[in-house]
Amino acid sequence: MPQEPRRNRTIVLASRPVGMPVSADFRLETLNAPTAGPGQVLLRTVFLSLDPYMRGRMSDAPSYAPPVGLGQVMVGGTVCRVQVSNHPLFAVGDWVLGYSGWQDYAVSDGAGLVRLDGAQPPSWSLGVLGMPGFTATMGLLEIGAPQTGETVVVAAATGAVGSVVGQIARIKGCRAVGVAGGPEKCRYAVEALGFDACLDHREPGLAQRLAGACPAGIDVYFENVGGAVFEAVLPLLNPRARVPVCGQIAHYNDREPPPGPDRTAQLLGTVLRRRIRMQGFIIFDDFGPRFGEFRKMMGGWLAAGRVHYREDRVEGLERAPEAFMGLFQGRNFGKLVVRVGPD
Amino acid sequence: MPQEPRRNRTIVLASRPVGMPVSADFRLETLNAPTAGPGQVLLRTVFLSLDPYMRGRMSDAPSYAPPVGLGQVMVGGTVCRVQVSNHPLFAVGDWVLGYSGWQDYAVSDGAGLVRLDGAQPPSWSLGVLGMPGFTATMGLLEIGAPQTGETVVVAAATGAVGSVVGQIARIKGCRAVGVAGGPEKCRYAVEALGFDACLDHREPGLAQRLAGACPAGIDVYFENVGGAVFEAVLPLLNPRARVPVCGQIAHYNDREPPPGPDRTAQLLGTVLRRRIRMQGFIIFDDFGPRFGEFRKMMGGWLAAGRVHYREDRVEGLERAPEAFMGLFQGRNFGKLVVRVGPD
Repeated sequence: MPQEPRRNRTIVLASRPVGMPVSADFRLETLNAPTAGPGQVLLRTVFLSLDPYMRGRMSDAPSYAPPVGLGQVMVGGTVCRVQVSNHPLFAVGDWVLGYSGWQDYAVSDGAGLVRLDGAQPPSWSLGVLGMPGFTATMGLLEIGAPQTGETVVVAAATGAVGSVVGQIARIKGCRAVGVAGGPEKCRYAVEALGFDACLDHREPGLAQRLAGACPAGIDVYFENVGGAVFEAVLPLLNPRARVPVCGQIAHYNDREPPPGPDRTAQLLGTVLRRRIRMQGFIIFDDFGPRFGEFRKMMGGWLAAGRVHYREDRVEGLERAPEAFMGLFQGRNFGKLVVRVGPD
Repeated sequence: MPQEPRRNRTIVLASRPVGMPVSADFRLETLNAPTAGPGQVLLRTVFLSLDPYMRGRMSDAPSYAPPVGLGQVMVGGTVCRVQVSNHPLFAVGDWVLGYSGWQDYAVSDGAGLVRLDGAQPPSWSLGVLGMPGFTATMGLLEIGAPQTGETVVVAAATGAVGSVVGQIARIKGCRAVGVAGGPEKCRYAVEALGFDACLDHREPGLAQRLAGACPAGIDVYFENVGGAVFEAVLPLLNPRARVPVCGQIAHYNDREPPPGPDRTAQLLGTVLRRRIRMQGFIIFDDFGPRFGEFRKMMGGWLAAGRVHYREDRVEGLERAPEAFMGLFQGRNFGKLVVRVGPD
């Protein structure tokens, strides 16, 4: 079937950031969209997910996934509609979850695409029903292994991952203590998400306030920020505490290691004396085959009103770089999603 | 039954060390031995174990066990003979494994005593068949979970724990790479204990030499030293590596944290990106009920010549402080044991 050439806006990596990314590290380029060949579909991006891990892909330091090349389109999870289909399993108009990056259009042979069934809004598959929700759920349940009555702490408590960690902790009968930036987010975490307490890390005395909010110590610390929160948590970890290590957003823009003293030995000493288990994970590498099971479980919680979800939507692909940079200042309130195209 | 008063030499904690312990932190006191009351036994210490963890008990910093009080007898594992028995389960002349500390005599109600069956020399129950061997075995097998063909690294490779870790790694079909102090120990690790390689940490370029000795990276690092070895290991850890954390002898005498930069975030980043599991353990707290099972398994390996054991014996209780201080310089060669009394 002949296809009109479509203009495809893309955002490419213009330069590798040193420290915090800046606008000049991104470049908007417009070219003709690719054409769907035999067995392929043409995808129109409707929603683009912005997530902290993308900072790692902008760097060529060794990591668990290859970096984005200079001049290449920034990677990212997307929710798209099928506009052209030469693939037997996809029809024009289908909603799909994919990984087509910061651009309007992409072609795919269907590998890795998940067709969305419409039970929840499509964009939720970038958040509570997607990678961040999956990360929160598996990290908490499989590595954190929370038991009824235990205390679970998570930072970025209103974010895509933290909000799910806290709500599942409550479902599992735990005390959920969040950390977030600013009184509005903290209020939301308690009132809308059901956290037992949420502390504003912008106020002084975090360590003391955290100790006050965790009178029985901390049994599970879901690590997604590092920095001052990690320092405040460490002395409160109970014997046999579990620390799923999912991210460290506070450090993604470090130009060099923080100044001393070197507290590595202190950390290892705490791990030893309190018999702590710390475990890093990369969600699809470690738990990929369980994505369907997760979506079913989370779909049930959402339908039952046991998990709430909040999106922070930005309109327009061209605003993605600015919105992405805001992640590192906590400017988003809820899961950051860019609307790229019309439904 | 009337009992002659016996003179009991004890070594008590005279002062809490600041940094490395010194002779003046210990004091030899002689008093009358206690008398076995109803249901009690009088134990004559024949062998006293000296182990790095004792440094922690000399300090009043919070730890997993209470500190030794000033003026109190230093704690420690002992192999003793029963000299008086008012207890139905013990007879005069029995060899027992106990925890009666740095002294000639002690009384016990039998709690925690293990009667030794004579299949191996009694003093081995302070090493390969006791706490250090148990630590090595459970830490490696249960937390390290080595698989055939993987690479296992351990420091203090000729010591009580490291020597067992390396030999069990070989039994499990792994490549065993040790680190030790000086050419004589390294040679012994390879030739007598069967390590595939052993590196002298006193020579320069440890990081490069370790990389050369671990061409397929490191799958299990049994952490018992910290410091420079840990630093050399970290870049070589493979995805999904396991790090049982059992000790950090390089840091037990730190007066303050090492100078910066602070590499805590770097460590957590590595844990995350390589999906590493680090887990601290305290052997009897975590695995106590499996001590009998361990002794049976290890007894089998010893009888079959699959595990070799070397003791470094010091003669005389009065030499215990000096020998103990030598542990932190690696002056011992093999498991450090003090002969306190005659058989």
